[in-house]
Amino acid sequence: MSRLLLNCDIGESFGNWTLGLDAEVMPFIDCANIACGFHAGDPGIMRKTVTLALANGVRIGAHPAYQDLAGFGRRSMSYSPEEIRDLLHYQIGALDGICRAQGARVSYVKPHGAMYNDMMAKPTQLRAVIQAVAAYDPQLPLMLMATRDNSTAQALGDEYGVTLWFEAFADRAYDNAGHLVSRQLPGAVHHDPQTILQQALTIARGDTLTASDGSALLLQADTLCVHGDNASSVAAVQRIREALNQQSGL
Amino acid sequence: MSRLLLNCDIGESFGNWTLGLDAEVMPFIDCANIACGFHAGDPGIMRKTVTLALANGVRIGAHPAYQDLAGFGRRSMSYSPEEIRDLLHYQIGALDGICRAQGARVSYVKPHGAMYNDMMAKPTQLRAVIQAVAAYDPQLPLMLMATRDNSTAQALGDEYGVTLWFEAFADRAYDNAGHLVSRQLPGAVHHDPQTILQQALTIARGDTLTASDGSALLLQADTLCVHGDNASSVAAVQRIREALNQQSGL
Amino acid sequence: MSRLLLNCDIGESFGNWTLGLDAEVMPFIDCANIACGFHAGDPGIMRKTVTLALANGVRIGAHPAYQDLAGFGRRSMSYSPEEIRDLLHYQIGALDGICRAQGARVSYVKPHGAMYNDMMAKPTQLRAVIQAVAAYDPQLPLMLMATRDNSTAQALGDEYGVTLWFEAFADRAYDNAGHLVSRQLPGAVHHDPQTILQQALTIARGDTLTASDGSALLLQADTLCVHGDNASSVAAVQRIREALNQQSGL
Amino acid sequence: MSRLLLNCDIGESFGNWTLGLDAEVMPFIDCANIACGFHAGDPGIMRKTVTLALANGVRIGAHPAYQDLAGFGRRSMSYSPEEIRDLLHYQIGALDGICRAQGARVSYVKPHGAMYNDMMAKPTQLRAVIQAVAAYDPQLPLMLMATRDNSTAQALGDEYGVTLWFEAFADRAYDNAGHLVSRQLPGAVHHDPQTILQQALTIARGDTLTASDGSALLLQADTLCVHGDNASSVAAVQRIREALNQQSGL
Repeated sequence: MSRLLLNCDIGESFGNWTLGLDAEVMPFIDCANIACGFHAGDPGIMRKTVTLALANGVRIGAHPAYQDLAGFGRRSMSYSPEEIRDLLHYQIGALDGICRAQGARVSYVKPHGAMYNDMMAKPTQLRAVIQAVAAYDPQLPLMLMATRDNSTAQALGDEYGVTLWFEAFADRAYDNAGHLVSRQLPGAVHHDPQTILQQALTIARGDTLTASDGSALLLQADTLCVHGDNASSVAAVQRIREALNQQSGL
Repeated sequence: MSRLLLNCDIGESFGNWTLGLDAEVMPFIDCANIACGFHAGDPGIMRKTVTLALANGVRIGAHPAYQDLAGFGRRSMSYSPEEIRDLLHYQIGALDGICRAQGARVSYVKPHGAMYNDMMAKPTQLRAVIQAVAAYDPQLPLMLMATRDNSTAQALGDEYGVTLWFEAFADRAYDNAGHLVSRQLPGAVHHDPQTILQQALTIARGDTLTASDGSALLLQADTLCVHGDNASSVAAVQRIREALNQQSGL
Repeated sequence: MSRLLLNCDIGESFGNWTLGLDAEVMPFIDCANIACGFHAGDPGIMRKTVTLALANGVRIGAHPAYQDLAGFGRRSMSYSPEEIRDLLHYQIGALDGICRAQGARVSYVKPHGAMYNDMMAKPTQLRAVIQAVAAYDPQLPLMLMATRDNSTAQALGDEYGVTLWFEAFADRAYDNAGHLVSRQLPGAVHHDPQTILQQALTIARGDTLTASDGSALLLQADTLCVHGDNASSVAAVQRIREALNQQSGL
Repeated sequence: MSRLLLNCDIGESFGNWTLGLDAEVMPFIDCANIACGFHAGDPGIMRKTVTLALANGVRIGAHPAYQDLAGFGRRSMSYSPEEIRDLLHYQIGALDGICRAQGARVSYVKPHGAMYNDMMAKPTQLRAVIQAVAAYDPQLPLMLMATRDNSTAQALGDEYGVTLWFEAFADRAYDNAGHLVSRQLPGAVHHDPQTILQQALTIARGDTLTASDGSALLLQADTLCVHGDNASSVAAVQRIREALNQQSGL
């Protein structure tokens, strides 16, 4: 992939509750990570979200999670590798079922919340996720986090024949290992629109960022994680989209 | 279909709770109606049930339900036709996802409990179910109840190009419309093994049953619904299986 | 009760999802109908909502519902009278547990959504609800809908020694039986602030409304149902509060 | 407490699924730890279980859990101390609501599964549980695990004025710290009825057990955890009950 894709969590409403400006952010993104019912998204929300993605020509990704609606999938839970695989197959399949009724398909997978964090922290869980994707469809890329050194993850992806899409963040500070600086620490989240935009463009050009300790950090990223939570984040996505288009001469 | 298939609800355990003698009944049936997580069956149970069905060469059917775990999908709930379609696509897809990881596919659909009863009682809901199956995959047959006159349902199936598999019951009394006699009434359920066996063979031969008012009733059935709840019902299934095999010269 | 109480559904957020302007509307109401976890409201939301009600000196009501989070408790479900009682005891008790940790108590009960509608439509369900409240604590009033003739409900309340608080609506048109005009019909919902305010004051004075067929309708109401969904409905509640205070010389 | 109480997890069925021989074991126990709906037990099951406990003169304990029905509350989940308190108040309150309708009360609290294990492993969580019980009702004892040294837990209980009931196990081996030997290790679970019975009597007399490393271990226990899972465990409970009665001259 030579172009930096913009991915965004989408379809995180549930029943009577609405979350996120899905319709507003959809025109500016490439990849929609669609909730699959376990942390957010019920079958009706999923259908409408797939329709919206298709209308905007946006790729549909499964965004599976731990089964924790009350915690929005953000609480770590002790699942076995086998349970992780079952959770993934169920949820990817459910979204694929919704897609199929609209002539579409799930085209990649990005775990949500604590399932994502635990996958990045525990090699056994990353292996379980990659195995699950391979068993479902080895043509589906898996989205995970770019760090200073992607080689361990890449080796696992290669072992199972699964393409990995590494993602970076424009609005977060990185430490020198290429991990996100904890939100508990000052400066962890960028709020200045120019800073966010510059970090997005730097990542897109393949240039180095400056880590929190001042060292140079090169993130090899295929995609940038953006947010459609509110009007201000949607505006940021629009600016990034336009700047990326300009940079790549579109 | 010339041979009367035996179908059975399977995979209705959930988490730590076990229900039904799935392994014991599986060798005697043709079609396993596998719960999809909304009334029973979690992703792990679904995986094990698919494995068991494949090991026994049994066809895998999706057995979707209303979202009512505490009520085992037996309570009627007022869903719109659109919601019924979403429920079906989500659940069929989820089971198909579990199947896919084992190189298999869902090969038919049979709604569960109140979703089944409401489908038989309300033409708008039957239409919604048939539309949902057609939109998912018009090659998937839909299992529903044989009555004295299958023509209205058949016309709807034909309209959407969906094959209908009509099912009959060997252990239940019928009224003269070909509906099951209510469990509230005496004689509604047959307990005598010979009566059950004879009703199964009568249906398989295409002969008439005697309805509760004494009239002759011809049910045109493709499949017989059997039960793996306990040792005695499994024994009944085994007897039916053997008698059907003998009758058809197997 | 001589003063018309204002009651409002409150605490209908869930997990990561926010619904309603609870903090904004709380200063203007008398009675907070707090969701108990089955259609909305998780234990943390319930705790915060109880704290907010106590800080504003607002009475805490249990707002129990059918177990249908995805449907926000708005889908009718076929529960037996015994199941209705169990649902009520569980949910009232849960809210009472949350209250107790703050030195407070549930002080009335108002069923939510489909449970409320079914209670008004089916005498067996109204009886089940009244029995459940009596068994829990006969001192707890039950809130239900005022119609042209409250006598049947009143007789049931008297039979079990349960006080009934009849509620009316300022923003809805009534038919001549004192039922709400269906939202499907034109003119069912009042949008004009003056119309809403006048209907509130008319009900508070005990004067007759004009039903949809032009007949005079007297509703004997103890409380008025108001809404905190958005800024405009909160403003309407504030106007009603101030006008009622003025009318009663407060 | 001078007499060793027998406590047992009870009411762990759910909806259509039955678990445990509740009616069979109830006559032999003193304390019923009743599931509160989050890992098992729905409102109807809870009502029937409370009725059964009352009929047998057995104390009713709340057995609250993490919100994980599919995992039976056995998966650790990362809840904050505040969330733990909310979970406890909701669930104790819910069971108290069910009790109240039968003229009864919850009389102690024993967390279930992962909530219990995490409470024993993390002092912040033990504090949160004790605080929650104190805020609900400081007269309610909390049941937790006896180890070689109960003093740290006892100090926390004293700080909040909550009585602690320490429990021991007759069918499990202990290490020299008074923790249960992991089920992964050989000899962790006693299967021989005589061994189980002797361990129960030894604990009841206040004599020392032999830990897995051969050292003497004194457990100061108020209650013994027994099981009603199957006929053989119920028989074990009956033997323990009779031997304890004989030992104490009943």
